[in-house]
Amino acid sequence: MTALDATTRVRHLLDEPHHDGSEVYVPAGTPALGDVVPVRFRVPASGAERAVWVRTVRDGEPRIEPARLDRSDEHERWYVADVPVHNPVTGYRALLDEPGGYRWLNGRGVHAREVPDVADFRLTVHAPAPAWLSSAVVYQVFPDRFARAGSHDGLPGGELPDWAVPARWDDEPIPAGPGVSQQLFGGHLAGVEAHLDHLERLGVDTLYLTPIFPSRSNHRYDARSFDHVDPLLGGDAAFASLSAAVHARGLRLVGDLTTNHTGAGHEWFERARADRTSEEASFYYWTDADPGYVGWLEHASLPKLNYAAGALAQRMIDGPDSVIARWLRPPYALDGWRIDVANMTGRYASEDRTHEVARTIRRTMQAVNPDSVLVSEHFHDAGPDLAGDGWHANMNYSAFTRPVWTWLAEPGSGLGFLGMPVPVPSRDGHAMVGSMREFDAAVPWAVTRHQWNMLGSHDTARLRTVVGSRERVEVAAGLLFTYPGTPAMFAGDEGGLRGTNGEHARVPMPWDAIAGGDGARWDAATFEVYRTLIAVRRGSRALREGGLRWAVVGPDAVAFLRETADERVLVLAARAPWSGADLPRHLLAPGHDAENLYGGAALDVTPEALRLPGDGPGVQVWRLA
Amino acid sequence: MTALDATTRVRHLLDEPHHDGSEVYVPAGTPALGDVVPVRFRVPASGAERAVWVRTVRDGEPRIEPARLDRSDEHERWYVADVPVHNPVTGYRALLDEPGGYRWLNGRGVHAREVPDVADFRLTVHAPAPAWLSSAVVYQVFPDRFARAGSHDGLPGGELPDWAVPARWDDEPIPAGPGVSQQLFGGHLAGVEAHLDHLERLGVDTLYLTPIFPSRSNHRYDARSFDHVDPLLGGDAAFASLSAAVHARGLRLVGDLTTNHTGAGHEWFERARADRTSEEASFYYWTDADPGYVGWLEHASLPKLNYAAGALAQRMIDGPDSVIARWLRPPYALDGWRIDVANMTGRYASEDRTHEVARTIRRTMQAVNPDSVLVSEHFHDAGPDLAGDGWHANMNYSAFTRPVWTWLAEPGSGLGFLGMPVPVPSRDGHAMVGSMREFDAAVPWAVTRHQWNMLGSHDTARLRTVVGSRERVEVAAGLLFTYPGTPAMFAGDEGGLRGTNGEHARVPMPWDAIAGGDGARWDAATFEVYRTLIAVRRGSRALREGGLRWAVVGPDAVAFLRETADERVLVLAARAPWSGADLPRHLLAPGHDAENLYGGAALDVTPEALRLPGDGPGVQVWRLA
Repeated sequence: MTALDATTRVRHLLDEPHHDGSEVYVPAGTPALGDVVPVRFRVPASGAERAVWVRTVRDGEPRIEPARLDRSDEHERWYVADVPVHNPVTGYRALLDEPGGYRWLNGRGVHAREVPDVADFRLTVHAPAPAWLSSAVVYQVFPDRFARAGSHDGLPGGELPDWAVPARWDDEPIPAGPGVSQQLFGGHLAGVEAHLDHLERLGVDTLYLTPIFPSRSNHRYDARSFDHVDPLLGGDAAFASLSAAVHARGLRLVGDLTTNHTGAGHEWFERARADRTSEEASFYYWTDADPGYVGWLEHASLPKLNYAAGALAQRMIDGPDSVIARWLRPPYALDGWRIDVANMTGRYASEDRTHEVARTIRRTMQAVNPDSVLVSEHFHDAGPDLAGDGWHANMNYSAFTRPVWTWLAEPGSGLGFLGMPVPVPSRDGHAMVGSMREFDAAVPWAVTRHQWNMLGSHDTARLRTVVGSRERVEVAAGLLFTYPGTPAMFAGDEGGLRGTNGEHARVPMPWDAIAGGDGARWDAATFEVYRTLIAVRRGSRALREGGLRWAVVGPDAVAFLRETADERVLVLAARAPWSGADLPRHLLAPGHDAENLYGGAALDVTPEALRLPGDGPGVQVWRLA
Repeated sequence: MTALDATTRVRHLLDEPHHDGSEVYVPAGTPALGDVVPVRFRVPASGAERAVWVRTVRDGEPRIEPARLDRSDEHERWYVADVPVHNPVTGYRALLDEPGGYRWLNGRGVHAREVPDVADFRLTVHAPAPAWLSSAVVYQVFPDRFARAGSHDGLPGGELPDWAVPARWDDEPIPAGPGVSQQLFGGHLAGVEAHLDHLERLGVDTLYLTPIFPSRSNHRYDARSFDHVDPLLGGDAAFASLSAAVHARGLRLVGDLTTNHTGAGHEWFERARADRTSEEASFYYWTDADPGYVGWLEHASLPKLNYAAGALAQRMIDGPDSVIARWLRPPYALDGWRIDVANMTGRYASEDRTHEVARTIRRTMQAVNPDSVLVSEHFHDAGPDLAGDGWHANMNYSAFTRPVWTWLAEPGSGLGFLGMPVPVPSRDGHAMVGSMREFDAAVPWAVTRHQWNMLGSHDTARLRTVVGSRERVEVAAGLLFTYPGTPAMFAGDEGGLRGTNGEHARVPMPWDAIAGGDGARWDAATFEVYRTLIAVRRGSRALREGGLRWAVVGPDAVAFLRETADERVLVLAARAPWSGADLPRHLLAPGHDAENLYGGAALDVTPEALRLPGDGPGVQVWRLA
């Protein structure tokens, strides 16, 4: 049924039946065990189905029950089926009984053959992320590089630690080799507090800070203690002050914790090394091989934590006295944690406690602050870790960052690609959307709609460097702010900052250029793109909470619909000029104009079709209903 | 790189790089934690790779290491990479660094986009099924329908239980409704023993008996006790005698156990109902709703077992006094268990102990008889349950039976399809192979190569009825005996017995027709097909233990290679006449003739190619090296 135009290689997907977990198809709210949830499937009028069934998996055994025709019009038919919530995660998919043999509809699309359960839709009894995350836009700050408390001239002031290599604010970050983790630009928490206006001007509302604990590096992922804030950043008082300022503006604050490891200089590790009979000695993995313990990715500087020790769990993640809990309480009052290397936390050789660790953290957070969010860092296939009972959502490299980069990367840039030994490839829209759909399909919608979508982070090259032009930055940002999930951006992307790898990308914010309009160091036009797209998102519930229907996928352009019960928004992203395409006319509500929300192009509305323009690169957003 | 011929819709897959877990690519034997396993990837000379890398996942984090060029000739290049076995199941895949952007090679094939880990190749530290299963051919017998001890004339003799509806041996099985489970034909274990010659003539070597415990049905999946053999079958003595006879011939014997439930008439359940404080009361799930307990699929006759109770585990599965252990010891000396409804065993609502149950059974069996096999019944997506630490293998409906049926089913037969509410569809070879590859890719090769492949069972319509012709039975049997895994056939399929559903398919063996040559009731030609194919399999180590390389997939024909270090066998199965196709000439070893092992067709060997004939329906097997 899905037509792939042989000339343009454009695929039209609105001819296919559709379902996702959004409110148009599944009632809002979190079901409980024993509930029966009516789920709806939409089939275009061109469909040949004789009947629709729903297949659910119950205690490992599928059951297939008929769906009922709920309503129909000249354009589509809606079926509804009851899904009993018998297991904490209930998988389901639709069976389309058609003359040519039935087809399955799951999270990846429609299949005319047998498929495994991995891409089934999922209902989960686990509560989703707190409601505020649904409208959040996250702004990631790397404390050493955002702002100083005082002057940005010269080297950092104050007494510097022995490991530090002081840098001037406008020095270039060392991309690799000696000094890369020691180069200290001297950003402070007071500097962040002094620049909160910038966040508000941009329109972001959630400040995510990478670690703030004392350490022996500029990135602070090698904590020496979890009890206090690094004095280099201003200490506990500066953090309490920042938290108060953030919350006074109605913004949120999310911290960053390494549950997988500590620094080798951590007070626990020092005690453990000094006394192998100490409680802290049970927190680590000891080996006969050099250096005598297990380090994260063999880094001796980052001894890995061992959750077989109940005492570690109590110290770190379990209960009101744990590190997790403490920083959620005033005066710090974090609104959530981002968990570093969550994919490896609790996993070592034949031990796998990662789900237990995630559930424990969740439980602890729930008790202290039920409105806090728990986000994992998992660069890879996080699907099996995202049933929804532990991490609320994940830093969505797999289902968003990687596919978008492959579509928009400047061909031949030779840039590294998120840990790959080969450069970022340049692929077409089919590859991008194929990967997005496959990774999205592996998690419940309640997770998908909160995933932290990114175009880069402190661990990647800068978006501007990856895509090679301001125009492509705009296309990428267009996807970021219109795709299901939580947009999470790295501070400075909004000004087109550049960097060739994660370390090189940790560019200090060029406050003088921002204030002074120095276009070579700060791209005000890109700032305006970000600011406007964030505002567009804030003005559209469909963009924040709507379902996702792919409409058109071609090598150089993709278009999709975001829909709630009362709104339909059409997004078109093109990386280059393309053929254009027609969409069904009825997508535009009767009597409604196609209101352009972003991009400025009129949608050509004929009596038969909505004509997508073939311009590019660029992004357009229209409200259709 | 994969060419799909637009005219014939035939896809050539030998142009693609390849890997699987067989001895050509992975050293034989089960690795231990800490081992480093060299794995090999084969790339055709036409490949454009600049380098090959291997990506392994270690504690949840991928690592990508270079593969080394091991050897090459004018036809292909072989790369080798070291895979450290750090976790009990270690996933890996190859990265092909190519000018157009890298591609991934995983168990489903080659991908020019990002893919999740589910189809990664897998090394597992868990021992595979016992070695004897590698060359086994399983023959499934439903005891009530195989043979009587005495005369097959008239009704069953002896005293019959109150529930039984006696049937004459040549009566038609009731397909549904009243009497379906009560119709008793009176097969006995002594009858099985008396007909072991038939098994040996056919060439099978493993007798799998569906349940033999006392019950209130002809299928005996509603056991009243696990302590004794049903007296209707001849009791314990008859079973001991059968076991001795089976083993005296060098054959094996596998039993069938319902770990998921008992019958409502089971002695445990009667005690539990009589005394809710009894130990047995903890074995079941009690509810307030009618009938007061949880039954399998809501059948009140089959109360579900609750493995939260440690006492149940000890009685049923754990340790030398358990049911599992007892029947493995002389004089019964079972060589294995097939576990009924394994997919639901230990799963109920928010509880999921199924992997724990499987591992416990495995451990118990290992202690009593390390040479015994543990096979699960899972009709659906068994991948997540097949890491290799519990069930050795599964009854392979998903990766074999269903796809093969969809390819060979008589179009428009209207026959039921393994629990589906719609008839078995008729699909092309692409759909069949697509599903086989996807389901195969989700389990370690150590499991794949022992999966119990079937063309039907006591739970399905008969193959002959599904495919509609003797010729298509032959094609199906050709796949069964040449595909990786353990061929497992239902007694009577070798004579073309018919039946429209699982119950109707439980046709008594027509011994008079078998002896008397009554072609209407027993198809001697089909018997010869089975006998010959089994012999061909026995004569080729590649067919039993070799890897699997798909060569050609078209709508009406498929061809694949089975390869060991010293043998290469080519299998061609066609359901209808087709275009034929050319394979690379070098597949035929120099100085070697293409020896036809089955089917009788000569392979047309030109200086450039091996020409696959376009005849059909039929199956051909050639030894190429």
